[in-house]
Amino acid sequence: MPHPLDSFFAPDSIAMIGASRDHEKIPGRLLSMLRKNEFPGRLYPINPNYGDIDGLKCYPSISDVGQPIDLAIIIIPARAVLGALEQCAAVGVRNAVIISSGFAEEGGDSAAMQDAIVALAKRTGMRISGPNAEGFLSEVQKVAATFSPTVDVKPGHVPLVATRRRAAIVAQSGGIGFAIKHRAKALGVAISYCVSAGNEADLGAGEFLEYMVQDSSTDVILLFIEGIRDVGKFLAAARRAAEIGKPVIVTKVGRSSAGGRGAASHTASMAGWSAAYDAVFAKYGFIISNDLDEAVTIAALLTTSPMPRGDRVAVLTVSGGGGIWGADTVSMQGLQVPELSQSIQAEIRTLIPSYGASCNPVDVTAQGANSGGLQKSIDLLNASDEVDAILVVLSLSSEVRMPFKQAELKPVIDAQNKPIVFYSYTLPSNFARTELAKSGVVVLSGLTHVGVAMRQMLQRAKFRLAPSMDDAAPASRDFSGYLKSATLSEFDSKALLRDAGIALPDEVLVTTREALDAAIARIGLPLVMKIQSRDILHKSEVGGVRVNLTTKGEAFAAYQALLDSARQHRPEAEIQGVLVSPMAKKGVEIIVGTLLDATFGSMVMVGLGGITTELFRDVIYRPAPVSAVEAAAMLGELKAAPLLNGFRGAAKTDVAALAQLISQLSVLAASAREHIAEIEINPVLVHPIGQGATIVDALVVARG
Amino acid sequence: MPHPLDSFFAPDSIAMIGASRDHEKIPGRLLSMLRKNEFPGRLYPINPNYGDIDGLKCYPSISDVGQPIDLAIIIIPARAVLGALEQCAAVGVRNAVIISSGFAEEGGDSAAMQDAIVALAKRTGMRISGPNAEGFLSEVQKVAATFSPTVDVKPGHVPLVATRRRAAIVAQSGGIGFAIKHRAKALGVAISYCVSAGNEADLGAGEFLEYMVQDSSTDVILLFIEGIRDVGKFLAAARRAAEIGKPVIVTKVGRSSAGGRGAASHTASMAGWSAAYDAVFAKYGFIISNDLDEAVTIAALLTTSPMPRGDRVAVLTVSGGGGIWGADTVSMQGLQVPELSQSIQAEIRTLIPSYGASCNPVDVTAQGANSGGLQKSIDLLNASDEVDAILVVLSLSSEVRMPFKQAELKPVIDAQNKPIVFYSYTLPSNFARTELAKSGVVVLSGLTHVGVAMRQMLQRAKFRLAPSMDDAAPASRDFSGYLKSATLSEFDSKALLRDAGIALPDEVLVTTREALDAAIARIGLPLVMKIQSRDILHKSEVGGVRVNLTTKGEAFAAYQALLDSARQHRPEAEIQGVLVSPMAKKGVEIIVGTLLDATFGSMVMVGLGGITTELFRDVIYRPAPVSAVEAAAMLGELKAAPLLNGFRGAAKTDVAALAQLISQLSVLAASAREHIAEIEINPVLVHPIGQGATIVDALVVARG
Repeated sequence: MPHPLDSFFAPDSIAMIGASRDHEKIPGRLLSMLRKNEFPGRLYPINPNYGDIDGLKCYPSISDVGQPIDLAIIIIPARAVLGALEQCAAVGVRNAVIISSGFAEEGGDSAAMQDAIVALAKRTGMRISGPNAEGFLSEVQKVAATFSPTVDVKPGHVPLVATRRRAAIVAQSGGIGFAIKHRAKALGVAISYCVSAGNEADLGAGEFLEYMVQDSSTDVILLFIEGIRDVGKFLAAARRAAEIGKPVIVTKVGRSSAGGRGAASHTASMAGWSAAYDAVFAKYGFIISNDLDEAVTIAALLTTSPMPRGDRVAVLTVSGGGGIWGADTVSMQGLQVPELSQSIQAEIRTLIPSYGASCNPVDVTAQGANSGGLQKSIDLLNASDEVDAILVVLSLSSEVRMPFKQAELKPVIDAQNKPIVFYSYTLPSNFARTELAKSGVVVLSGLTHVGVAMRQMLQRAKFRLAPSMDDAAPASRDFSGYLKSATLSEFDSKALLRDAGIALPDEVLVTTREALDAAIARIGLPLVMKIQSRDILHKSEVGGVRVNLTTKGEAFAAYQALLDSARQHRPEAEIQGVLVSPMAKKGVEIIVGTLLDATFGSMVMVGLGGITTELFRDVIYRPAPVSAVEAAAMLGELKAAPLLNGFRGAAKTDVAALAQLISQLSVLAASAREHIAEIEINPVLVHPIGQGATIVDALVVARG
Repeated sequence: MPHPLDSFFAPDSIAMIGASRDHEKIPGRLLSMLRKNEFPGRLYPINPNYGDIDGLKCYPSISDVGQPIDLAIIIIPARAVLGALEQCAAVGVRNAVIISSGFAEEGGDSAAMQDAIVALAKRTGMRISGPNAEGFLSEVQKVAATFSPTVDVKPGHVPLVATRRRAAIVAQSGGIGFAIKHRAKALGVAISYCVSAGNEADLGAGEFLEYMVQDSSTDVILLFIEGIRDVGKFLAAARRAAEIGKPVIVTKVGRSSAGGRGAASHTASMAGWSAAYDAVFAKYGFIISNDLDEAVTIAALLTTSPMPRGDRVAVLTVSGGGGIWGADTVSMQGLQVPELSQSIQAEIRTLIPSYGASCNPVDVTAQGANSGGLQKSIDLLNASDEVDAILVVLSLSSEVRMPFKQAELKPVIDAQNKPIVFYSYTLPSNFARTELAKSGVVVLSGLTHVGVAMRQMLQRAKFRLAPSMDDAAPASRDFSGYLKSATLSEFDSKALLRDAGIALPDEVLVTTREALDAAIARIGLPLVMKIQSRDILHKSEVGGVRVNLTTKGEAFAAYQALLDSARQHRPEAEIQGVLVSPMAKKGVEIIVGTLLDATFGSMVMVGLGGITTELFRDVIYRPAPVSAVEAAAMLGELKAAPLLNGFRGAAKTDVAALAQLISQLSVLAASAREHIAEIEINPVLVHPIGQGATIVDALVVARG
């Protein structure tokens, strides 16, 4: 299907504004890269100082070309860029890439120049990438619209291509984007596109992602981001990728405070809070990788192998030590390395020397590799339903020898019905890479990365997109009546939640000693009593909580003590009264909260309550709203999940009720996001199955 | 200082028993490798079928040589090996390496042949490596006594050497050992020795480690182990390495059940339980790495850089995105990336373009790199005391250009007083590696590995060997009086602990209803009462525990109920009585235990008690005995350590008392290891500082 950006990524004609004869400088390099990479369309160098460049006619200005132009590449001083764009727009240039630097990343007047570019794009409809971009490469249409040294073509160099499927790269850093391409190509992973987003005056990473998602020549997407600007487009593209099952491997940097400092000064964008990014990635099944080689290894697996159907791995090796290491590594990633059945072991033993091992890891030995036993064992395990993936651990450092024959290996790889992954413990030789590429094999050389990639691939295979909750949000409600102060008291907070349909225990706010009797009669003993004030955020710090009051006498004494203690600790606090609540039944302590992220809006969070959450950082976030099904999936991701599911003989808890509560809270947060900044329920006690969950304390923070 | 194995690793003369003219086969390859690597000593091929090989005189048998022989390399069929060894011993050959396979790893008769080799070594004093070994390489004395393809010398190849210091490799897998060497040399890390241990009939990994520790040409040791056999030598070498500050990087495989399966069938050794290995590694400051490239990256840092004095890292970059990624990566490892002072930022700004960044990460930009700003910024930060290490993030893929001049960079690297680490996000070119090696720089290409290596280096810099506890163990005591059944009751266990000098609450075992009154009077209310039986391991499962009994009446009722419940649940159990204990004061719940490891003997363990230990696997092990100081260090390594140190405003706990208890228990376990298999104190409650710790329950398991 045609796409508006087709003329950007697959232009028939390119104008080079600022073209130069000097191949040492970036403007000169751009033109020579386009030609070296055999751009098949028309090229128009633009520079008033030359009549021709390297045999190409050079035009004084874009207006002089007199032909339709799909793409203008602009590499002239920053202050001349806007004028050039105006000229482009005047003659109907459809797209532009601005390589020039010196805009928003410098701040001040330079930022204003970028604003003018944004306005021009809006006004004219011309699509603009950059400024401060490193351009893009299309390997599909041979467009090297970039000065990246990694697209240079060495004479006589034959590119290594092992994969039938292709990966696209979308990066908010040109240096890193093309480094990903460089490393992927070194492994033999075929590339469709590599695009760097620069300052994203008009075209942003989200829109580029959207292009790659719909692009039929792209099977896997590698995404490198510092901070998403075109959030709506990004989210739509992410959803679409999940719907059509196109895997996205994402690296998000700016996670640390130091990294964030770099992001702010470098891209003129505030890097978002990473937990929200990770929540969005989780929602759409993105594979998160924070290492370049790991990301490329995952891409290599996804472009060479079918998805695994389960977690059982056979490890085949020519070195005992290497096989054990391979088995350890995939086991540490949570995959299984099951002992093989006696029948398949018997078959394997006919293929290997007596001092080999057939159980799993299967050690075919160096001799077994040379005599074809390795190849035949791969065939056998590929055909077997005892394992879901095969990891081959071997040494491929030789520049002359290889333990496979293409005629035998290629048919197996072509017909493989499970991942067959090749890892060399010695550094693989170019010979081995080249020879194995002919059979469709990528040789990997980082064992931990291989283990992570195999686990990630399985997780991706299991991923199911949660049904959209777009229709679940109720009409936006007006809760302003409750939001009288920035931070609400527990009583106010619970009143708001109750109004929003969330079930809470029956409680009474007592404001006079006289009213306490009736409250006790209504709630029943034993009681909990808590001081209420919008000025007291942490009640227990002012002695403001009394639990397990079992007699009327205790309750009256507590009432007075709570008021006295609050007055003593916080004489200035305005006291609402004392909240009288029933003692909650025992349960597993859980914390549920919502907050607003600057980039992605409402988020919902759940974690094990008490000290554990803070100490082990065992919390899970998702964009709000979530359905109860999605909330239950969040609970399943907690390290502490076993506590909810009958740990050490305890009763299984009412996870359904808790999931329902999380969903309700997330819907409330999303629909009231104009007014409510945060909600925290801490703790909610989850009781045994069928007995629900009890909200013990709650806090709502109004949006400032 | 001379060492008995000098004649093994640096032989003046080598006999090749089984030498061959066929360079394609292993025996032929061995001889040619020795000559290609320019072995400077005398070579005696032994083979009755040849008069000469490649111009060297060939002898019918070792007895015909008539010259002293330091080393015999044996590569003949397994059943001929013992005879050859006898001949070697008869003519006074000092050392042998048996390359031949077909011994213990095959089991049966073949294992018996290996036993005979062991006996011969003992009888004759000849030192023997192997069988089933891949041999060794000495780069110091140019001895390539191995058939590993990785020691082949390509004509015209100039080895890359960037480091002044050298790494030695000791591996229980020849394939992996030489793969480590292959990867280390590819980075430019200088190697002293690489030795594969094979079946370890005589010489084992522990003794090889000991050699490398004392070897003055070795600065760092890379160790790959499946399971240590010469445990005493290994531990002595480990201690010596720690004492003299020679870093050991260790990879231990066979950690998973699948990996362990491989280890058993492959090396004829039972792989030990990995927690004990990790405990030993921690005790001696070994750097654990489970990834080949990561291990080699750590070795590269240790052989190029001085130890860091602190955790503050400056990240220098030519790519904004790369710098942020670098800052994120080291931050995730717990290192700091502090904002630089205004004065140093001002200096840096004079070196870089206006669109660069000076705060940290410092983005000198591509232009800044080309104009020398990168080099000058490195100088500046090396001289500054604001940071303890420098991470340079750049692109070194070019085969022709490099942003440094050797004349400028080498003096800085030679005089560096902190780690200066170079990471290229594109794949580094051979040109860049070669050029930078001239200045003493290793170019690294795995960012996560770099981050881990920097953290590991800092941890190693902080490591202090705990003083030996060898004198602390009391004379072995006879506890057999307590060890009447395999599993002791709580009462028996506590009696044993008390006898060993460990403080416990005053408790009374009540065996008749009549005795309960006196017990209550002695212990005081409130009480805990627990059923005691050597047949009941889990008291709470039979309703055998009653806590917080506040009146005599409750206590009498509980006594009867405990007996009734035990009889109902376990009619066959022999009941000792009911243990009456005081209610313990509140405290942080800790579990302390000891056990016997098959390889390393007594181990002591500590973890946070309750569900947390099991759920988050937050436990630390050390070889027993440990001093109180070492025990306190163990506590500091717990993820839950903050709970002991005044978490969220709670009182700090009596860590000193807990550490003392752990030490006492570890001394008991070590001194009574002939009789006691396990001790578990679960829980011990740790009270606020000065209030000690209370042992609530204890279990001793006799050695079977």
